[in-house]
Amino acid sequence: MKRPTIADIARRAGVSKGAVSYALNGQPGVSEETRARIQAIAQEIGWRPNLAARLLTGAGAGAIGLVVCRPARFLGVEPFFMELISGIEGELAARSCALMLQVAAGHEDEIAVHRRWWGEGRVDGVILVDLHADDPRVPVMEQLGMPAVVIGHPSAAGSLPAVWSDEAAAMREVLEHLAALGHRRVGRVAGPAALAHTAIRDAAFEESLAALGLDGAPAAHTDYTGEEGARATRRLLSSRSRPTAIVYDNDITALAGLSVAQEMGLEVPAGLSVVAWDDSPLCQVVRPPLTALARDIPASGARAAQLVLRMAAGEQVTGAQDAAARLRPRGSTAPAP
Amino acid sequence: MKRPTIADIARRAGVSKGAVSYALNGQPGVSEETRARIQAIAQEIGWRPNLAARLLTGAGAGAIGLVVCRPARFLGVEPFFMELISGIEGELAARSCALMLQVAAGHEDEIAVHRRWWGEGRVDGVILVDLHADDPRVPVMEQLGMPAVVIGHPSAAGSLPAVWSDEAAAMREVLEHLAALGHRRVGRVAGPAALAHTAIRDAAFEESLAALGLDGAPAAHTDYTGEEGARATRRLLSSRSRPTAIVYDNDITALAGLSVAQEMGLEVPAGLSVVAWDDSPLCQVVRPPLTALARDIPASGARAAQLVLRMAAGEQVTGAQDAAARLRPRGSTAPAP
Repeated sequence: MKRPTIADIARRAGVSKGAVSYALNGQPGVSEETRARIQAIAQEIGWRPNLAARLLTGAGAGAIGLVVCRPARFLGVEPFFMELISGIEGELAARSCALMLQVAAGHEDEIAVHRRWWGEGRVDGVILVDLHADDPRVPVMEQLGMPAVVIGHPSAAGSLPAVWSDEAAAMREVLEHLAALGHRRVGRVAGPAALAHTAIRDAAFEESLAALGLDGAPAAHTDYTGEEGARATRRLLSSRSRPTAIVYDNDITALAGLSVAQEMGLEVPAGLSVVAWDDSPLCQVVRPPLTALARDIPASGARAAQLVLRMAAGEQVTGAQDAAARLRPRGSTAPAP
Repeated sequence: MKRPTIADIARRAGVSKGAVSYALNGQPGVSEETRARIQAIAQEIGWRPNLAARLLTGAGAGAIGLVVCRPARFLGVEPFFMELISGIEGELAARSCALMLQVAAGHEDEIAVHRRWWGEGRVDGVILVDLHADDPRVPVMEQLGMPAVVIGHPSAAGSLPAVWSDEAAAMREVLEHLAALGHRRVGRVAGPAALAHTAIRDAAFEESLAALGLDGAPAAHTDYTGEEGARATRRLLSSRSRPTAIVYDNDITALAGLSVAQEMGLEVPAGLSVVAWDDSPLCQVVRPPLTALARDIPASGARAAQLVLRMAAGEQVTGAQDAAARLRPRGSTAPAP
């Protein structure tokens, strides 16, 4: 059994292939009755204009690409990506557009994928995530003239439109909350130092500490995994100037921090306050539920998908600022001990 | 700026488009020196034979499809899918094949996506997950003649090849472990009743209870979310014949169960033993770390990708049985109170 073709429709309808082509392309040359019959048969046997025909008419690939460049074994427990993908998908599916997904080992691999996709005409545009400072992907996109939208701060996006939120404002909100609870020494377990948004949060952390007159150890950078989150927490809690609150860059490291505190006999929140970033449902599954910075990740994905589709249609687009993440205080933060 | 074309290469090389075509297609008609120069220019400006040309020569779409049919907001915290995708990806990327991903609201939507993909020639085959008993997708794939591999038990796969593992053996191993620890009453918090593998685990649970002379409440079915996992656990722990151990169908519900026990003043494992299924890194992030059934989800994804590529190449393939999940006893199981 093969994909249905125009010849199959012609055979069933007892007409020529030319007549089928006229009927399906809305051209004159067949009676309205025959056209209706041919359309019904096409529908019944599942015929569609094929992708090759679509590409040859310049209608575009009908697909948007996303390359994820984190080690595969960490992806499963990082709620961020599936939330982002679900937002992108929702927008694309409404327009019968597909998402091409690829996991790459590094920027060089990722760039090779983009070049191939673009050269082959396989995608109409791409969404870039996890931007680095001086990200090598940005000039490649600019040079290829490939529609590309960055999810991240405009400072890392070059001339590409960016969908971003004010991470510095969010960090400030967390530290003001902790300062109001009487915390004077705050730790930070961060994502990879190379990521642009980590650097932005690092700087905001230092600035807010200074502005609020708080002490804090420099950010401990991790690869976002529970293992590294646990190790960084253990180090912070073993230091002579132990913090009474720790701010984490994602849910998994915060969860790991909660467990380490427990392991070390420190009760959360009585002995240690914990704040997570992202607020996936994980934050409410654990006890105590985690105070978290909530942001609408699917909405950012949807916004990026809209923008890249508009770019692919030839529009000039500018980036879009999403609402800053908002603090949701829960049981893991309390007055300083 | 546009995608590089044969005309761009011809202009740069100072030759005709015909000469470029001869050079790139390995046909005679140009000198070896000119061929090398043309190939170097093509490489330099990132020219590739486009997808339309590829499709017209019958080389296939170079893409495999996966439709995920769970509500988008639950996907983020279900490690299973990203692990599966990373396994599929690893296999596809090695062959420069792409993954088309779509999130659908139900089987009807999913079937429409498959019909469209197949009709358009957009994918060479698909991988089906979360099979139901009498799954409506199976006869559609059979009728379309679309290469399709099922991740799930052959009993739900019709004539399609299945990549599966022995869920009944895994369930038996769990109950034997609990029986050996002296547990006499075991609860089960399961996935959706409509899923074929839930039914297989349900039946194995009942059979193993009977074989081991244990008591157990009927399985409490959930949508795999922490919320429903917590509710089901609360109900089990509030019943007059409270179980001393609970077996969960995924990591998130087990994590929720752990929190509910804590909430109700039951210590894990002293007052309640908890067993999770899947063993994502989440199981080791929490305290106590969760005893879990570990299976190699990326390997199953890779296996399914291999099979569907072989089907797409016209081979007759049979399914493959993966190793059964293995119990990894950790701190969440202990002798019955």
